[in-house]
Amino acid sequence: MSELRHDPIQRRWVIISTERGLRPMDLQPVAQPVAQPQSTCPFCRGQERHTPPEIARVGDGNGSWDARVVPNKFPALGIEGDIDRRAVGQFDRMNGIGAHEVVIETPDHATDLAETPLGRFAAVLRLYRDRLADLMRDPRLRFVIVFKNHGDAAGASLSHPHSQIIATPVTPLAVAAELQAAREHYNVKERCLFCDIMHQELAEQRRVVVADADFVTIAPYASRNPFEMMLMPRRHAHDFSRCDDAMLLALACHFREVLRRMKAALGDVPYNFILHTAPNSIHSVDVRGDYWKTLHLDWHWHFEILPRLTRVAGFEWGTGFYINPTAPEDAARYLREVDPS
Amino acid sequence: MSELRHDPIQRRWVIISTERGLRPMDLQPVAQPVAQPQSTCPFCRGQERHTPPEIARVGDGNGSWDARVVPNKFPALGIEGDIDRRAVGQFDRMNGIGAHEVVIETPDHATDLAETPLGRFAAVLRLYRDRLADLMRDPRLRFVIVFKNHGDAAGASLSHPHSQIIATPVTPLAVAAELQAAREHYNVKERCLFCDIMHQELAEQRRVVVADADFVTIAPYASRNPFEMMLMPRRHAHDFSRCDDAMLLALACHFREVLRRMKAALGDVPYNFILHTAPNSIHSVDVRGDYWKTLHLDWHWHFEILPRLTRVAGFEWGTGFYINPTAPEDAARYLREVDPS
Repeated sequence: MSELRHDPIQRRWVIISTERGLRPMDLQPVAQPVAQPQSTCPFCRGQERHTPPEIARVGDGNGSWDARVVPNKFPALGIEGDIDRRAVGQFDRMNGIGAHEVVIETPDHATDLAETPLGRFAAVLRLYRDRLADLMRDPRLRFVIVFKNHGDAAGASLSHPHSQIIATPVTPLAVAAELQAAREHYNVKERCLFCDIMHQELAEQRRVVVADADFVTIAPYASRNPFEMMLMPRRHAHDFSRCDDAMLLALACHFREVLRRMKAALGDVPYNFILHTAPNSIHSVDVRGDYWKTLHLDWHWHFEILPRLTRVAGFEWGTGFYINPTAPEDAARYLREVDPS
Repeated sequence: MSELRHDPIQRRWVIISTERGLRPMDLQPVAQPVAQPQSTCPFCRGQERHTPPEIARVGDGNGSWDARVVPNKFPALGIEGDIDRRAVGQFDRMNGIGAHEVVIETPDHATDLAETPLGRFAAVLRLYRDRLADLMRDPRLRFVIVFKNHGDAAGASLSHPHSQIIATPVTPLAVAAELQAAREHYNVKERCLFCDIMHQELAEQRRVVVADADFVTIAPYASRNPFEMMLMPRRHAHDFSRCDDAMLLALACHFREVLRRMKAALGDVPYNFILHTAPNSIHSVDVRGDYWKTLHLDWHWHFEILPRLTRVAGFEWGTGFYINPTAPEDAARYLREVDPS
């Protein structure tokens, strides 16, 4: 018998269709890397002249680089100009102000994050943090999203390991909905919704994938997709850009283990991960012209990790209602029991 | 320069990235029919014993059938039992009560709706209507969704032309959001949001794909995807199950032209369509035990038609924010100017 489950963060129901109950070996990952010869790759070491001018880099101590950030060559949003909001009859438009950057995670074409040395993984996370902090100084930008597309089916258009950063002048719908759910929970209970979920999951253990002193990764109770995961810090923290280097090294260690377990259980599947940090909520300007920002006691930054094992069909597109053929308890057990090495 | 547009129905912003401005010939439809030999197809004429017992059919007048409805062999939700709602710690669950049916659109394996004779297309629409009307008599079911997955990339698992009907015991998130937007618009203006949009589009003409005496299809102002369309009746109507046969024949004629124009412009692309009719809002029971339903002056039934030309990547998954590389004005123009015959 299938069951319906409600996600308290996204406030959406999902159908956990246990009769179709798929195990890892039943899933047919469509996970092909994007075909792209190394010789034409603009992200490889030595090809730096083929990208737009670098925004940031982490050096390797030998005058070269471990990871670097460049503007997206085909940006969805551009940084120049003022926000211009207009009505078009009854519709609303804005000009496309924002930022669109690429984080090149390694100089080597053929590695992947699950195999990256810890120091280099931490360097990538430091670049996420530093770019977030920098972009959030711009009051035009309401939200900064860091995400990764791995594999053709997950939307990657280049195979060299990279992630992307997009800063938008509005708060995206799904994030706004999560913020509202978390705020209403906090207003009633004076507790963080994410902390509450984490505590229930740690007490029950059934949906915990990896838990260490600093981070916890779970398979959410109402997962939309097979083997979906949520990674969050144990201690309440709303803003990823405030992580210190030690925290990011611990995160690299935890995150890499999660990716390794995913790879060991499912193979080299296409996947996305997405960082949901606090929005850039500027609530006042002081006499010096400095911006003061909301302290989100009701928000807890987290990564959504989404292996792309099933296709989004008409039902999901038309309703926002998902049918998940793998119970998250089963997914968490497979991921816990697999040998990640 | 890209621009942001706001959809007043879904209340989501999209990025129309005109710099990437793709024309039909630039899009790479991944549109493969599902590989399935006709000899093993359970939906073909003569193979009726391979489906669960038939729920409804439209005959061809010669003792055979034009279209039929059967239960899904692997249903996501089951019709038997009472609704059981429970708390699981802070989470919520329900048992999987609902219905999951398949509409076999034709006895012939290799035709498609765009090529179907009008009478057979209308027969399929009558089956949608009749199943909707029947399922909406069940007060456990809050919403009935009719949808079609065409092609592997759109989620079809069998290539024989078919659509599906799923009845759910909750109102799906995306539908609930649209209902709320439409209701709030109505509460302020005492006008239907969809009628307002249709009138603006008919006045401007730029995003109209096909308009006749009874139906209008537009490329929505804030389309999420290239060549997305919305089809709706000209006269306000909230409930698809109240359409009469003449209306459905007119709809078949309009809908087939839309599908033909899509096919002529884009080729045999994977696509979904989804019917958003009024929810099954039962507001009272009279002394005879009959249910009285809400008359939705604020709702207007419509089909969303979604060619699947781009992949959903991490940004879209993580934010509900879409980047559309084709302006809907361009999409509508291509679809208007193409020869559909």
